[in-house]
Amino acid sequence: MTKSPANPIPTPSVPAPDILRCAYAELVVTDLAASRKFYVDVLGLHVSYEDDTQIYLRSFEEFIHHNLVLTLGPVAALKAMAFRVRSNEEVDAAEAYYKELGCRTERRKEGFVRGIGDALRVEDPLGFPYEFFFETTHVERLHMRYDLYSAGELVRLDHFNQVTPDVPRGRAYLEDLGFRVTEDIQDEEGTTYAAWMQRKGTVHDTALTGGDGPRLHHVAFSTHEKHNIIQICDKMGALRISDRIERGPGRHGVSNAFYLYILDPDDHRIEIYTQDYYTGDPDNPVITWDVHDNQRRDWWGNPVVPSWYTEASKVLDLDGNVREVLKRTDSSEMAVTVGADGFSYTRAPGDAMTGDPGEEIGFKMGNQV
Amino acid sequence: MTKSPANPIPTPSVPAPDILRCAYAELVVTDLAASRKFYVDVLGLHVSYEDDTQIYLRSFEEFIHHNLVLTLGPVAALKAMAFRVRSNEEVDAAEAYYKELGCRTERRKEGFVRGIGDALRVEDPLGFPYEFFFETTHVERLHMRYDLYSAGELVRLDHFNQVTPDVPRGRAYLEDLGFRVTEDIQDEEGTTYAAWMQRKGTVHDTALTGGDGPRLHHVAFSTHEKHNIIQICDKMGALRISDRIERGPGRHGVSNAFYLYILDPDDHRIEIYTQDYYTGDPDNPVITWDVHDNQRRDWWGNPVVPSWYTEASKVLDLDGNVREVLKRTDSSEMAVTVGADGFSYTRAPGDAMTGDPGEEIGFKMGNQV
Amino acid sequence: MTKSPANPIPTPSVPAPDILRCAYAELVVTDLAASRKFYVDVLGLHVSYEDDTQIYLRSFEEFIHHNLVLTLGPVAALKAMAFRVRSNEEVDAAEAYYKELGCRTERRKEGFVRGIGDALRVEDPLGFPYEFFFETTHVERLHMRYDLYSAGELVRLDHFNQVTPDVPRGRAYLEDLGFRVTEDIQDEEGTTYAAWMQRKGTVHDTALTGGDGPRLHHVAFSTHEKHNIIQICDKMGALRISDRIERGPGRHGVSNAFYLYILDPDDHRIEIYTQDYYTGDPDNPVITWDVHDNQRRDWWGNPVVPSWYTEASKVLDLDGNVREVLKRTDSSEMAVTVGADGFSYTRAPGDAMTGDPGEEIGFKMGNQV
Amino acid sequence: MTKSPANPIPTPSVPAPDILRCAYAELVVTDLAASRKFYVDVLGLHVSYEDDTQIYLRSFEEFIHHNLVLTLGPVAALKAMAFRVRSNEEVDAAEAYYKELGCRTERRKEGFVRGIGDALRVEDPLGFPYEFFFETTHVERLHMRYDLYSAGELVRLDHFNQVTPDVPRGRAYLEDLGFRVTEDIQDEEGTTYAAWMQRKGTVHDTALTGGDGPRLHHVAFSTHEKHNIIQICDKMGALRISDRIERGPGRHGVSNAFYLYILDPDDHRIEIYTQDYYTGDPDNPVITWDVHDNQRRDWWGNPVVPSWYTEASKVLDLDGNVREVLKRTDSSEMAVTVGADGFSYTRAPGDAMTGDPGEEIGFKMGNQV
Repeated sequence: MTKSPANPIPTPSVPAPDILRCAYAELVVTDLAASRKFYVDVLGLHVSYEDDTQIYLRSFEEFIHHNLVLTLGPVAALKAMAFRVRSNEEVDAAEAYYKELGCRTERRKEGFVRGIGDALRVEDPLGFPYEFFFETTHVERLHMRYDLYSAGELVRLDHFNQVTPDVPRGRAYLEDLGFRVTEDIQDEEGTTYAAWMQRKGTVHDTALTGGDGPRLHHVAFSTHEKHNIIQICDKMGALRISDRIERGPGRHGVSNAFYLYILDPDDHRIEIYTQDYYTGDPDNPVITWDVHDNQRRDWWGNPVVPSWYTEASKVLDLDGNVREVLKRTDSSEMAVTVGADGFSYTRAPGDAMTGDPGEEIGFKMGNQV
Repeated sequence: MTKSPANPIPTPSVPAPDILRCAYAELVVTDLAASRKFYVDVLGLHVSYEDDTQIYLRSFEEFIHHNLVLTLGPVAALKAMAFRVRSNEEVDAAEAYYKELGCRTERRKEGFVRGIGDALRVEDPLGFPYEFFFETTHVERLHMRYDLYSAGELVRLDHFNQVTPDVPRGRAYLEDLGFRVTEDIQDEEGTTYAAWMQRKGTVHDTALTGGDGPRLHHVAFSTHEKHNIIQICDKMGALRISDRIERGPGRHGVSNAFYLYILDPDDHRIEIYTQDYYTGDPDNPVITWDVHDNQRRDWWGNPVVPSWYTEASKVLDLDGNVREVLKRTDSSEMAVTVGADGFSYTRAPGDAMTGDPGEEIGFKMGNQV
Repeated sequence: MTKSPANPIPTPSVPAPDILRCAYAELVVTDLAASRKFYVDVLGLHVSYEDDTQIYLRSFEEFIHHNLVLTLGPVAALKAMAFRVRSNEEVDAAEAYYKELGCRTERRKEGFVRGIGDALRVEDPLGFPYEFFFETTHVERLHMRYDLYSAGELVRLDHFNQVTPDVPRGRAYLEDLGFRVTEDIQDEEGTTYAAWMQRKGTVHDTALTGGDGPRLHHVAFSTHEKHNIIQICDKMGALRISDRIERGPGRHGVSNAFYLYILDPDDHRIEIYTQDYYTGDPDNPVITWDVHDNQRRDWWGNPVVPSWYTEASKVLDLDGNVREVLKRTDSSEMAVTVGADGFSYTRAPGDAMTGDPGEEIGFKMGNQV
Repeated sequence: MTKSPANPIPTPSVPAPDILRCAYAELVVTDLAASRKFYVDVLGLHVSYEDDTQIYLRSFEEFIHHNLVLTLGPVAALKAMAFRVRSNEEVDAAEAYYKELGCRTERRKEGFVRGIGDALRVEDPLGFPYEFFFETTHVERLHMRYDLYSAGELVRLDHFNQVTPDVPRGRAYLEDLGFRVTEDIQDEEGTTYAAWMQRKGTVHDTALTGGDGPRLHHVAFSTHEKHNIIQICDKMGALRISDRIERGPGRHGVSNAFYLYILDPDDHRIEIYTQDYYTGDPDNPVITWDVHDNQRRDWWGNPVVPSWYTEASKVLDLDGNVREVLKRTDSSEMAVTVGADGFSYTRAPGDAMTGDPGEEIGFKMGNQV
């Protein structure tokens, strides 16, 4: 049973904007050349535009101007996470919605970045710099340009993942905003450790991970097949940057996707992700995972490295200042699961599959270095 | 520079037998039903014959009677590791060869197990129960029976891996026996931690891993593609036996193969392996890895779990008694690499790839739980 | 420029129902045992329910009761093609919509088949038996049941494809109904040969193929990866039913998906399909292919077999009688493209890629047996 | 029952050379720039050396200097097909062997091409320009250079395929030379249409295809996985050279490999090939296919285009003159199988798999355009 939030964010009287999907992230990076090596030379994202201060990148199948903007700046951080809405009228709706919430908003008819027109940026109730837009420059969709197809090709932007101290509070706010929860992680007391929410009919367009926030946990791109992700690992090995592979590859429990987490030169976390499932029906069953289920984060029971729980990117306010980070007060997922806490399990006792007696439950983490 | 062994095994005056390839292993298991679940229901190996005390299994592309014999017994152990030779005359050659070495040998014209004819078993100088045979019952090669092809199909037996205290000593013995080294792991003093040796033109038919021995480290089967190995992990997750996934999946540095290590109900270790390279030319370049190279065991720098270094299967002598295990005296690979010893590296200092200053060398293991 | 239809279907004054996606097809088959062999033993679809007269099947990731109903009957035909709508109110909307169109409709609160509740069936203006429903029994979503995952696993229902004489007329009707065109095939005079239309954000939920109709061209299921489709071919080869592989595998030009067409025991055509692209944005660019482009139907220029153009399944009216088929009056795609008509092309003249002079345009079809 | 050749080639009294594997082909091309586009830009082979008259190429996993030499010349042809032997002494053995056969031979201590030392070239009894060598310059083995790994990467040279009028005669000659037959195609009278022969433990290092000869049918490179071959098709589609895809992709009956045939700018045929099986045991079972088996050439029953049977590359003698082509006198495979001859079959009558009555045997070819 999900606990309702202590100090809920009010539900506005005006309708929420009709959000299509997560569309692009603007990341501040401190060394544009190093970032270009990582995103263009290593990951093979396609350049829509670049100059001395910015690089605009898109995935193989994208037709809007970009999925990622790298902006040179003094402090590595998330400057904006942008959602595309159905029309300009929905940008108006977003503006009215956040004004009623008492959030600071900024509207620019000419857009905040190249290739995007009329757009709204807000400091949302969780402290994240959300953008809403419809207008965009169409660029060549490269989806049949197999002459440009790399062995580890990134074909779509899949989702964002945000770190926030109070997940139920953030979840209720995003449900008001029109997102639908597909999966979450809870414990027996109903403490929610993370929640996944979607608009475009996949497992998520964004997710909330419980922790000190507001911070950006990662931005995720998808590939066509699993071997494409393996190639990215192999290539990073060949380039002797395997230490930038933070976690994986593996199979998620939550989302059922095949995944990999890597770190860019500024430690912005990028997930490579493939093959989750369709969630577009209104009665799509929500899957709740037990935080003590050893396969929830990795279906194969491989351990989550602590950095994945503790590290994340700072976020900026509309003035470009780093937002203060608030501590999570609920118990942390890492504290209740990692290491020899004895509370995680792989299966119920007595399972005969391995011929084990069963009273000792299989559990890999304690075996890890 | 490889150190020559302290007390070398003498080179016989008679020619070594002409070995074709690793052919099958006979494993003693303590619960035949549990083992059948693992090898037949989970891994999908094909039954050539079974009764109340034995199960004979083969891989998808095999035409000899079996690649694995599971024999019910009181203590889990390796009873025999069998190599196929070019003819019965080569079995004679093997007999003469080991008699000159002063090893205990046993010759059975009717074979030691079903489906195998005239065969020799020996207690070899390293204490392993080697078998040599040519005669075998041909069975249906299932290589085009795609109606029987499972998503994680094991198509060939690829190799054995043996644990022995003195790797250079064992290596020289196996080179005399006709094996060719393809890769090894050494340190700057020339201590050898492991060596890979082949007959059939792949990276190995058997390998020597430095440690307390004689013990069997693992038996390896190969798949066609990488996704087949991922499916085995996914299936073990679905069966809630993910704790039987010991290590991987990953990309080996040594051999360049994609790999997975899993444990059977008796803790016999099975590797699933795919896509190494051709080594059949006499001047095939030997690759020597620095034991401190953080990518030697996993090209992506993922850590090796300690159990992989310390645990292995007992081996039996020709009377069926468990062989005594001798301690390794050289430094162990685990001791010099695992954890925060600070002696392992991912790349040379100053690499600009990630924009790191470089004086701090990327190294993932210390980050692991 | 698309020609507007001669005798258009009027646009109702009431709103169109909010369609979520294509949901299931009901096919009449003449030998239930033979059909079960094909759909369950060969293709591995999962049985939700079966008795002596019907088999209900679903794909690996589905949570509604079924994607395919096989109903025993005297004449092989399509009995219904069903779309899921957002709520029961949308079933009401569909009823009002088709009543205004003067179509025969039938509403059943208890549903027409098991696992489906309140539903509407209509004889639509093109003569197809459409069903609209929301209520359904939820079944176990098997998406993580990798213990049941076959090497050629079908994971989702992807789309339908309908044969109709006047494509522009049908296209306008379906656009009124809320479908959005993603791609089409036209010639220089604007004759439309086929059109693809979507609701769920993929390339299509249904498509119109120009030809004698109303007839069902095929029902398509998707796989995770391309190798899954190759396995289905390999398995059909092993079962010696390769003559039931009608066309492919190949890469579509239209949709960019990897595809295969096979025939069930009643010659109902099934497509296996994977990896098209996201189309959910309202300004998703429509791709129009030249009917003379030799890569439009197969990106590799492999020929389309004539049966693929000429053969299709009959459809039934609400009384279960076979609908009369009307002839196509526009020129047929087969006539203008297949064989040595000299009007198809692979590339523009003068392309230096192959070192060809270029005045003779590469064209494979004439070379075929 | 294989017919013995009419006028057999005598078996020399001296031992045959110990051949390791097929090593490289030297092809004369008429436009070096166009050939470079094809082999380097499209196929991604790696350049070991190039100048204005030659390009030396190798596959991803190769360590000898090259697998393919493109030599500029007036007439497109095969200049040499080279096999690597175990040592220089084996080059001597080859020289003695062919001298006894009365063949014209030429020995060059410095080699015939760059990167190769002491070598013998011969005009062999079938009229082919064979080369035998051991000495070669070792180059960087790129097998872990995943930073250079393309989506359609060619990782090894797999085999040659030669067209000769009298297959049994050529087969007996190659068996004397030490090749072992793995598979062949015959009819009920014992006419042999083709034979596959190996040295390195795969299905073949070279094959004989019945037809007017001596001509080179193709040179084959292998990939790691099937999707790599699909990418080559997709890329050729994107480059609008799909008409250079002659046949496939498909699954071979013979060899069980996944295949593709493409044509270079001079119409030299290249096969891309992956996943055949191990054949290194002396008692490896030979598979004989019925020429009327509709799945022998393509396991899925897809038709062979006539050009694949009729077209092949000319071969040169040691003076660089084009060899005269002798007509095949036995019936041709194309004549007895292609089109509506009614003599080919997919399965035995009465097969219930599809619910067919069975007296009409499934057969796809007649349906093709």
